[in-house]
Amino acid sequence: MVTIKEIAEKLGVSISTVSKGLNGASDISDELKQIVLDTAVEMGYSTKRSRNEKYRKLAIFVENMEYSNMDDFGYDIVLGFKQNAFRHKFEVEIIPVTPSLQEQERYDTYLLKHQYCGAFLVGFALHDEWMKQLETTTMPTILLDNFIPENPTVGYVGTDNAEGIDMAVKYLHNLGHKKIAFLNGSLHSKVSEDRQKAFESSMQKCGLVPEKNLMAYGFYVADSAKYHVPGFLSNGATAIICGNDLIASGVINECKIRGFKVPDDISVIGFDDIPIASTTEPPLSTVRQERNELGRCAFVALNSLINHIPISITLLRPQLIIRESSGCVPVKN
Amino acid sequence: MVTIKEIAEKLGVSISTVSKGLNGASDISDELKQIVLDTAVEMGYSTKRSRNEKYRKLAIFVENMEYSNMDDFGYDIVLGFKQNAFRHKFEVEIIPVTPSLQEQERYDTYLLKHQYCGAFLVGFALHDEWMKQLETTTMPTILLDNFIPENPTVGYVGTDNAEGIDMAVKYLHNLGHKKIAFLNGSLHSKVSEDRQKAFESSMQKCGLVPEKNLMAYGFYVADSAKYHVPGFLSNGATAIICGNDLIASGVINECKIRGFKVPDDISVIGFDDIPIASTTEPPLSTVRQERNELGRCAFVALNSLINHIPISITLLRPQLIIRESSGCVPVKN
Repeated sequence: MVTIKEIAEKLGVSISTVSKGLNGASDISDELKQIVLDTAVEMGYSTKRSRNEKYRKLAIFVENMEYSNMDDFGYDIVLGFKQNAFRHKFEVEIIPVTPSLQEQERYDTYLLKHQYCGAFLVGFALHDEWMKQLETTTMPTILLDNFIPENPTVGYVGTDNAEGIDMAVKYLHNLGHKKIAFLNGSLHSKVSEDRQKAFESSMQKCGLVPEKNLMAYGFYVADSAKYHVPGFLSNGATAIICGNDLIASGVINECKIRGFKVPDDISVIGFDDIPIASTTEPPLSTVRQERNELGRCAFVALNSLINHIPISITLLRPQLIIRESSGCVPVKN
Repeated sequence: MVTIKEIAEKLGVSISTVSKGLNGASDISDELKQIVLDTAVEMGYSTKRSRNEKYRKLAIFVENMEYSNMDDFGYDIVLGFKQNAFRHKFEVEIIPVTPSLQEQERYDTYLLKHQYCGAFLVGFALHDEWMKQLETTTMPTILLDNFIPENPTVGYVGTDNAEGIDMAVKYLHNLGHKKIAFLNGSLHSKVSEDRQKAFESSMQKCGLVPEKNLMAYGFYVADSAKYHVPGFLSNGATAIICGNDLIASGVINECKIRGFKVPDDISVIGFDDIPIASTTEPPLSTVRQERNELGRCAFVALNSLINHIPISITLLRPQLIIRESSGCVPVKN
């Protein structure tokens, strides 16, 4: 169990300051109060506090996504959601979900049975059983990267994928690249579909041709690279945009194995900017998603639905982070 | 000057309750506190309170949009924004804007000079001078129904137009209509462009043909009807979807003048659900925009930008409101 003392030590402030922050005292600044609360949530103090007060319960259902370590894509998303929820007196429980759980119990029933007044769903696939049930759910629900049409109790939060892909393609085009490959993530995911459309449209906007033998779906793991990179290289790609940073790290390795230097022979761009992006060799250029803010906005959207504001779509800006894995198109000899 | 007594009278509560609500006392419910604050803002009490405390300043710039009477499209949008802003200790000033003001003074300069820490822009046209400047502004800015790519200090709030038009087209198609006309609002407006694309795509999804002689741009006023309705009728339209409720009210009149009964001979559908929609003869079916919530969400988005959360797009759900101006396709004799 995390104690007030441990929070104070981590922040380098006094125990009484932490206590004031947790109890909403008026003689410390709002900024400091927020830092204390956010740190308490990150260290797992929140459930202790909420046992003594009337906290309403929210669920985060997670499928196909890692979130337990700081390096994981989902870590900051879950944390941002919990931090914002805690400030508004909601307790958050995280429930890993499998396809079989979805077959066993209806979505609405699960929420009602466990007294959740709303939920945030991350990592779900388009064909999931609960995704179908969301078309008619009456429970306030926010989806990361998924959209349900015409149901006003369900909202969608994500990053503007079209703009992110567009930034990457334009950047490479300005560096002289024409043969740009796209190694997407998994099929059956809205985010992959959106980025695929965006890639084809961005290439066309730049006057470039999206070539069939330079585009492929893989999975959101590094291992995807070895099945597709050899083909991309032999088909003359000078740059590869990847569906996430894990894929991109695999692509960098695969290029090296085959004697291609990154970025001299080939540029590689990731998506997400998870912590490993700055530690690959060379460090990875990538389209950053603000994951803590995604989590915070997901809570704001869910709280809006709980308060009968029919929010549908919330998109955050991506940001193109340029590191050393990308550069000018190689000069042909 | 509005007094506490007047607010108490309007709400039918005691003066001390109003006073408690305005001062954030803890012995009245959060719901009642919100009602008191919202009513105070609507009655114009907010500026009085903010003179005594440190309120930061926000601007609402308005062009091409009526907002001063309850019947106006902009009334609830401006009110919702102000109500949410007041709760977060922002004072709001409303500034009507003309093209010549935009030529005279740069957008950023105007905000800095008047000490606004952010702004909400409603009713701007695509070719406006300030719209160009927003591509590079560094001031937190939210646009109603307009989008600026790749500038993370500018966000867009609106209703999901594609879903709204889709609901209207599907509803009419289910009633047997095939010759559906679309009388859009003004050219040079993003919202008109979005709805035009949405109309053509929705018609195609229903297996219907969007016919050139059944589609036209007008202006967002009732008078638009007389230039286009005669053509639509002689080309066999059995339903007309309109860019807003004012256009739709003009369409209903124009149909009547030409001896067409609404809805027996022709169905008419508006957009917005402003107060007049329920008072036309017959009452108007329309795609509702939640205008107070649009204003509230615009404030939430602007406050996010002020706090460096790069929110880009916030869309609310539309709702199809069915009244008496629409019905089954007429049976041909």
